[in-house]
Amino acid sequence: MPLIDVVLGVDIGGTNTKFGLVDRAGTPVVQTSIPTNAHEPAESLVARLHDGCTRMLAPLKATHALRGIGMGAPNANFFRGTVENPPNLSWKGVVPVADMVRKYYDLPVALTNDANAAALGEMLYGAAKGMKNFIVITLGTGLGSGIVSAGELVYGADGFAGEIGHTMVDPEGRECGCGQRGHLETYASATGLCRTVGELLAVRRDESPLRAIAPRDLTSRMVADAANAGDPIACEVFEVTGQILGMKLADSVAHLSPEAIILFGGLAAAGPLIFEPTARSLEEHLLPIFKNKVKLLPSALREGDTAVLGAAALIWNEILKQQKT
Amino acid sequence: MPLIDVVLGVDIGGTNTKFGLVDRAGTPVVQTSIPTNAHEPAESLVARLHDGCTRMLAPLKATHALRGIGMGAPNANFFRGTVENPPNLSWKGVVPVADMVRKYYDLPVALTNDANAAALGEMLYGAAKGMKNFIVITLGTGLGSGIVSAGELVYGADGFAGEIGHTMVDPEGRECGCGQRGHLETYASATGLCRTVGELLAVRRDESPLRAIAPRDLTSRMVADAANAGDPIACEVFEVTGQILGMKLADSVAHLSPEAIILFGGLAAAGPLIFEPTARSLEEHLLPIFKNKVKLLPSALREGDTAVLGAAALIWNEILKQQKT
Repeated sequence: MPLIDVVLGVDIGGTNTKFGLVDRAGTPVVQTSIPTNAHEPAESLVARLHDGCTRMLAPLKATHALRGIGMGAPNANFFRGTVENPPNLSWKGVVPVADMVRKYYDLPVALTNDANAAALGEMLYGAAKGMKNFIVITLGTGLGSGIVSAGELVYGADGFAGEIGHTMVDPEGRECGCGQRGHLETYASATGLCRTVGELLAVRRDESPLRAIAPRDLTSRMVADAANAGDPIACEVFEVTGQILGMKLADSVAHLSPEAIILFGGLAAAGPLIFEPTARSLEEHLLPIFKNKVKLLPSALREGDTAVLGAAALIWNEILKQQKT
Repeated sequence: MPLIDVVLGVDIGGTNTKFGLVDRAGTPVVQTSIPTNAHEPAESLVARLHDGCTRMLAPLKATHALRGIGMGAPNANFFRGTVENPPNLSWKGVVPVADMVRKYYDLPVALTNDANAAALGEMLYGAAKGMKNFIVITLGTGLGSGIVSAGELVYGADGFAGEIGHTMVDPEGRECGCGQRGHLETYASATGLCRTVGELLAVRRDESPLRAIAPRDLTSRMVADAANAGDPIACEVFEVTGQILGMKLADSVAHLSPEAIILFGGLAAAGPLIFEPTARSLEEHLLPIFKNKVKLLPSALREGDTAVLGAAALIWNEILKQQKT
């Protein structure tokens, strides 16, 4: 019997590193996770990852063949196979993660940031199946984005394209993690949503269950729960967030004319609370030639699988392209 | 002796239609223009174009071979070969211009908008030679843009990508020709510059030669002349315009990570008056990972040649790609 081809998908997060084996159809055959230990050097994580993968492959040796390793990580550079000054890890400077992995495996290794990996995952297995032009927006702690144009991820000149989270909403606006002010992710992200709660609580006088929660304890989930329970301030927070996100996504459409924009991540889990105002504002701000053409879609990947699937898609996409030509 | 391959480049403008024969090296062998006669149907223009081209080719028959026809036009759609509701022509609806041309020629015919054509012209023969990721901005009556990613023009899902002129500066801002408000081209274009003159003259009280010119007679050239003569209001107008343009171009960089942005067209002819504040503001607003990486360049094509060269580049680019594979 022929061996079943699988790709190792790895998602390096600030807390945990998930990895798993993904087959050609995008089914996660097996997956697990290990602590990232953000304070340790990258070599240590790669060594533990190799151990974990060896254990994972052991019972499958007779039936499965590993074809490559795809990795998603914050501040990853596809061209160089590096992770550069990642915000949530102690790794300093430019870390050659792909090369570290190649010491253990004589296989194709590719690395990109998590939002780009998510975009490939959606293209091969999710909401963007069959699409050639689309944008994936991840609404988590920050706002990440992966752009696909003519069926290819847009990396730009230096591999760092797709930073829609750092486009400008208000030059005099909120401080951004990048050192500038007023960027989109300070408004449209789980964190941005919570900052808007603080702003609205200061402006308005009406009661709200959100007044009982300390800012540092507040989560986007709590705001969603309050909105679903009818709290007018929580509802307005989602409305304002969607307004801003939709307006800026109209700018992205003017650049790229995508077929769809896919929202994904913790804040997207709020469903209609965030999708409805965003879709309304997007449509309102679109140039006439783009109106009624751009779909705003939720991810079609299972929340827990996305990171590993997307990372594996980085290799599967290359294998499938080679088979076509 | 082998024949010299040439491509017919055609630029359909609101007043004149320029066309010429361009060789592989990007030299315009011969060029001329005919009135567009914007009130006449497209068929009539195409028939006159065919006559003109026949006369142009007659003396070259023994030495040159026509290999294809590339066309630039407002609101042109590359995928469909159509011009759709052009703002400055009486043509209504979707006009199949490429098919009309194919009735006369059994040759490759391609059509795109003027800014996309300009981008290909810069890539093959101008300031973007050898670059694979860059943006061309045309600062004329409006603001047009052509985006190249990984060596390919970005057309998006429907062929209308690259509308950076219609990204948002101020949702409550100036009325835009597209029916919305506050778009970039209402500030950063020859027309936008003149609107800023009106605004500043109203705000300030100091004397200026610009106070002697009726708004409908004012041109960006007059504002440049006043600025070069030291008029503080004219200088501030350029400063404000560059501020806004640079800030929005930082958004474009966040999307696309280009190697360079090339400014082009009537307002770009003002040189340092517009380049200096734009470059300063761009650099100031760039995300740290992009700082000191993105060049702001003037076009390297001769002003009078650009439109025809760019249109011809549409075909030459395809021929060169085929020869590579």
